[in-house]
Amino acid sequence: MSGTGLFISFEGIDGSGKSTQARLLADHLIAKGRDVVLTREPGGSPGAEEIRALVLQGSPDRWSAETEILLFTAARRDHLERTIQPALDAGKVVICDRFADSTRMYQGLSRGDLRGTVDNLHRLMIGVEPDLTLLIDMPPDQGLSRALSRQGVEERFEEFGEDLQKAMRAGFLDLATEFPERFIKINGAQEIDAVAADVARAVDARLVA
Amino acid sequence: MSGTGLFISFEGIDGSGKSTQARLLADHLIAKGRDVVLTREPGGSPGAEEIRALVLQGSPDRWSAETEILLFTAARRDHLERTIQPALDAGKVVICDRFADSTRMYQGLSRGDLRGTVDNLHRLMIGVEPDLTLLIDMPPDQGLSRALSRQGVEERFEEFGEDLQKAMRAGFLDLATEFPERFIKINGAQEIDAVAADVARAVDARLVA
Repeated sequence: MSGTGLFISFEGIDGSGKSTQARLLADHLIAKGRDVVLTREPGGSPGAEEIRALVLQGSPDRWSAETEILLFTAARRDHLERTIQPALDAGKVVICDRFADSTRMYQGLSRGDLRGTVDNLHRLMIGVEPDLTLLIDMPPDQGLSRALSRQGVEERFEEFGEDLQKAMRAGFLDLATEFPERFIKINGAQEIDAVAADVARAVDARLVA
Repeated sequence: MSGTGLFISFEGIDGSGKSTQARLLADHLIAKGRDVVLTREPGGSPGAEEIRALVLQGSPDRWSAETEILLFTAARRDHLERTIQPALDAGKVVICDRFADSTRMYQGLSRGDLRGTVDNLHRLMIGVEPDLTLLIDMPPDQGLSRALSRQGVEERFEEFGEDLQKAMRAGFLDLATEFPERFIKINGAQEIDAVAADVARAVDARLVA
């Protein structure tokens, strides 16, 4: 990733605590005097949030997997241009709750074997990876019970059940092997403060380096 | 194009009379007993119409050229899956007011030199061309005055002025040279009935063959 800032993404299965940990990391870095932009996908810029609403509301078969990948890529392009890249160019730390790895898993895996399509589109229209990806790893039964306790209108991606969550966990661990230079696996099956301490240690090491 | 039907697109600059001619061709073919689906882009299926609204309303710099191409490709994929391909599979004639050639021109030309990006995305996510593309060709000053007389909320693409319309006309003529096997150039600078007769003749010849 170009720019003078640092681009950090959080990944993991539903209910793994990614969003909480992203917020806690933002607090930690702000306390250390860093300029931080905390954002999320899908969404993260006004246009991308509108695309997010279009994709996530309605019935699960409203869009084919291919159309969904195109819409998520459009949202990511907007998010990158309007939110992420300007912040990195200004030397800020960008913390993003999900990025392209989630598309590799959710659209590339759960909706058919479209990983190749996802990768081709990413190469053509995005081309950027985080400097650091924190994988909050956790047994699926634990994640699923958390996810189900907070269902809202955007529950589509949490309706898939435990078998899929198992496949997702395995898929994220495979991605960590595929991209070892940027992935750091964090044990999410600990108390929140212990997870946050592991995350902070991993990021502090990278910021010093 | 696969399927047992016939896929016909209309292309041309704004105000060239494409939409009128598409309707008149539909009437002509229905009168001859053909099953016809008359559709348009961007849009043409419920999902694609929602994406159309997202792209066309608001200020012209709301989306970058790249994001806009992704959104139009998402809309086209939905339109193809939900409207065009099922109709062709059922043996119908599909008449589409604009298709991928319009993206090649409007996004590929008018918003920067993105023709390569448009073509790569098309190859990756669409892959289909019409059997027959009717280019309604006309001097830009004539088209522009017609287009300006019917401005509405979706006027973004008609705000570009005569110089751009000249470049567009030249671009469409270049496309006709690039894809001679499917393009037929029609003289749009005639009375509506005379244009419709030329269109009907060209399509009838293809239907008999």
